[in-house]
Amino acid sequence: MRSKAVCLLSGGLDSTVTTYYAKHNGYDIATLSIAYGQRHTRELSCAETISKKVSAIKHITLPINFSHLSSTSLIKNSSIPIAHQQFQDIGKTIPSTYVPGRNIVFLSLALSWAEALDATNVFIGINAVDYSGYPDCRAEFISAFEQMAKLGTKKGIEGIPIHIQTPLLDKTKQEIIRLGHRLGVPFEYTWSCYKGDSKACGVCDSCQLRLKGFKEAGLTDPLSYETYPTWY
Amino acid sequence: MRSKAVCLLSGGLDSTVTTYYAKHNGYDIATLSIAYGQRHTRELSCAETISKKVSAIKHITLPINFSHLSSTSLIKNSSIPIAHQQFQDIGKTIPSTYVPGRNIVFLSLALSWAEALDATNVFIGINAVDYSGYPDCRAEFISAFEQMAKLGTKKGIEGIPIHIQTPLLDKTKQEIIRLGHRLGVPFEYTWSCYKGDSKACGVCDSCQLRLKGFKEAGLTDPLSYETYPTWY
Repeated sequence: MRSKAVCLLSGGLDSTVTTYYAKHNGYDIATLSIAYGQRHTRELSCAETISKKVSAIKHITLPINFSHLSSTSLIKNSSIPIAHQQFQDIGKTIPSTYVPGRNIVFLSLALSWAEALDATNVFIGINAVDYSGYPDCRAEFISAFEQMAKLGTKKGIEGIPIHIQTPLLDKTKQEIIRLGHRLGVPFEYTWSCYKGDSKACGVCDSCQLRLKGFKEAGLTDPLSYETYPTWY
Repeated sequence: MRSKAVCLLSGGLDSTVTTYYAKHNGYDIATLSIAYGQRHTRELSCAETISKKVSAIKHITLPINFSHLSSTSLIKNSSIPIAHQQFQDIGKTIPSTYVPGRNIVFLSLALSWAEALDATNVFIGINAVDYSGYPDCRAEFISAFEQMAKLGTKKGIEGIPIHIQTPLLDKTKQEIIRLGHRLGVPFEYTWSCYKGDSKACGVCDSCQLRLKGFKEAGLTDPLSYETYPTWY
């Protein structure tokens, strides 16, 4: 019997590459998407499409009303404008798009589901290179989460703890895109834009990081953009 | 300005005593209840009443459909019957009412809210004496959770980590009930029964533990029960 893995799949580029990576490594995949009132809900339909394409054994979209809990510019109807950082500053400070404890909550839900499904691994597409400003995108945090999970779950105390896998942690965006390309990721079904209209904006941090990655990887992004950065 | 604390409040006896304890210790209280499809939804209306009585500055009931995620006899419509353990066996094994990763998810949500509210503490009424079968009711788990939270939150890496307080951890049920009595807890607005009808059943593990606690504390439980154990 193949091992099962729960993949946190937002429908963005990183989580999609991570999901394809898990599949490529022989796991049966269960995909978990969290509808937390994000502005870019288009991601969620991408997550559904990707789940089909990767032949996920299960796919759940779990609604959590994070907007009750926190205030951040990533939450829909938030009055906080999305900051457009100077590109060179991305990753240096904690950005306004930081949702307090988001990855902690997401990993906890994935862990809970993994334990119920008898899955051995949880995959999350966090990245410490482009998102070093987020405390919950760092290796130290993941190690501490694994340790906590080992002590706080039945499987953990039975000596078969669930592992948290972060295959993209130290990769640059161009490396992630190259990996996705090798794994056959259909990038046209991934969504990165924070603004989430019919076309990607090409202006927000996330669009800029993505386009820069494609450019540096020597590949073409199949998505359509409203506007392209001058350097693209 | 008084410090704020997020209290996880199910509406059960332990979480209510914990909330009164936090209030008594000078915190402004924000109460978080999780509607996770539990059989005993009456707890949730108790949580609302208690939040008013304790003058909570905020009270949220956050719905999470845990039944998507796991299978346990504590979830409504579950096909798993609630086990009636021999009373002397309670706490010795992981019971069928164990929800995988439940406290991990609850603490994560409370932590996220605490960070958004600028709260310094999260209170949870877990207890290692009567619930030693639950891996996520142990001191080692709480320490590991605090460490993870320190590394995974903005406040944590800024050097002002959020503390997880577990004032009931090592208390017996009678000690918890005595503490609640001293703090003026209105026990009639707390609900412990797993079966959750108009009266408490008096048969399930939780009713038995509660009644035993009142008996040993030399106090009378103001709740009505369908039936009382012979030893009561």
